[in-house]
Amino acid sequence: MRVAIIGTGLIGGSLALALKQNGFASRIIGVDHNQDNLQKALSLGIIDEGSLLEDIYDHSDVVLLSIPVNAIERLLPQILDQISENTIVADLGSTKERICKSVEKHPKRGNYVAAHPIAGTENTGPEAAIPHLYENKQVIICEATESIPEALKLITAMFNQLKMNVIEMTPSQHDLHIAYVSHLSHISSFSLAQTVLNKESTEPEIFKMAGGGFSSTTRLAKSSPEMWNPIITQNKENILIALQEHIENLQGFWKAIDDDDSAQILQLMQKANKVKDKLKG
Amino acid sequence: MRVAIIGTGLIGGSLALALKQNGFASRIIGVDHNQDNLQKALSLGIIDEGSLLEDIYDHSDVVLLSIPVNAIERLLPQILDQISENTIVADLGSTKERICKSVEKHPKRGNYVAAHPIAGTENTGPEAAIPHLYENKQVIICEATESIPEALKLITAMFNQLKMNVIEMTPSQHDLHIAYVSHLSHISSFSLAQTVLNKESTEPEIFKMAGGGFSSTTRLAKSSPEMWNPIITQNKENILIALQEHIENLQGFWKAIDDDDSAQILQLMQKANKVKDKLKG
Repeated sequence: MRVAIIGTGLIGGSLALALKQNGFASRIIGVDHNQDNLQKALSLGIIDEGSLLEDIYDHSDVVLLSIPVNAIERLLPQILDQISENTIVADLGSTKERICKSVEKHPKRGNYVAAHPIAGTENTGPEAAIPHLYENKQVIICEATESIPEALKLITAMFNQLKMNVIEMTPSQHDLHIAYVSHLSHISSFSLAQTVLNKESTEPEIFKMAGGGFSSTTRLAKSSPEMWNPIITQNKENILIALQEHIENLQGFWKAIDDDDSAQILQLMQKANKVKDKLKG
Repeated sequence: MRVAIIGTGLIGGSLALALKQNGFASRIIGVDHNQDNLQKALSLGIIDEGSLLEDIYDHSDVVLLSIPVNAIERLLPQILDQISENTIVADLGSTKERICKSVEKHPKRGNYVAAHPIAGTENTGPEAAIPHLYENKQVIICEATESIPEALKLITAMFNQLKMNVIEMTPSQHDLHIAYVSHLSHISSFSLAQTVLNKESTEPEIFKMAGGGFSSTTRLAKSSPEMWNPIITQNKENILIALQEHIENLQGFWKAIDDDDSAQILQLMQKANKVKDKLKG
């Protein structure tokens, strides 16, 4: 299978490495508007050749989009315009409503599978790519019935070969849920980092005492702003609601602490403790 | 050296394992008001014998307190009342102002060293104890000049043998800094978990999509409420200020998102990105 990967950073690069290792891809063609990244991906052996987008169509059985979600929304209709009847396209973006909407009436909508693998790290670029990124993770497929059976079957098989667990849901369900379990975590992390960085101006040694807990809660603050900015724009309404609820919960903590209401603080923490049963490890 | 450890959970148990392994302790006497924990610590080989608090004084060269901070504040003066001239006491609590205050006029204040090793996991109890918990971590010592040189020397040597880096600061500096880099992270994590758990009532499948990012930002929400409640009480004023600043930063994000102010969102994330330079790994 000849696979074109548009975007050769952490997400696309890791996918390229894994698909080459497991034999799904016989050849990987990389496309990246960042020539430095493309060169790095080539020299790291992540892709077999670099290409311009317009040159991939005659040489690709599968086209995978691992670029920021605003770029997916813009490029996906153009790519569907260009592909042959037999080429399958999938995206790996963190939002699904606007991306699905962008091609809902496209004559080749069936050739496209809307996907979101729940995997990543806070690092960016081809040098951050790791072949095992996707193993034992979830991948969401949206509007499965809008894809032709051949497309759905191929992309599902690809994810299964990566040892991923495929879950189907609607784009609106996806975007609502992911606002809570991913997008909110990122904003919280960015904001926590910001709070302590601001404090550093008057307390220059404040990071000396930062331990594992701080690292864990602010790990996502190292994520790429260029990737996260369009995600926030595309999932604005869900994020505003989730973020508002989180702010209100923090205000509830603040009030209980201010009131010396130790019983209430204890109860809030005991309730939050139930997350133990929801998460493995 | 005969070492009594008051509190045989994660913190005390890990310390016991390490001090026995590195030869600092020839014998470990464990004290715990929870008889189950004491039995577990004994059967796991973490302590050599269990004891009542009142029976440790004739048999201990060093007494280490690894119990909730309100219990440290209450017991520390009583322990200083009972120890011999040659016994050294140290605590490992996450707050320092009120604990230091509780013994500031005590005739045996010099025998006590106020310490806080910045190490831990979200797990609790003797079964969570691990011997390498403290390696290559920071430990804060407060009011070093209030301890007699022999006490300071012994406890510093103990932490150095654990491969810890000793930093000295005042209790008020400690409590201010730790509010930002630890206590705030815990409250944020408890609140994030609470926000998603609340949403589960209407969206029962919401945790299906939780990946590494959510796990990382809510790991601390698994922490012991019984340990954290008194920490919050003791560091109330600093935590209220830090939490208020964090809430305001989140409100800043909310407003920028609501205003579609993409340039501002990008700038907030780029600033937060600087946390990369502050944290290793």
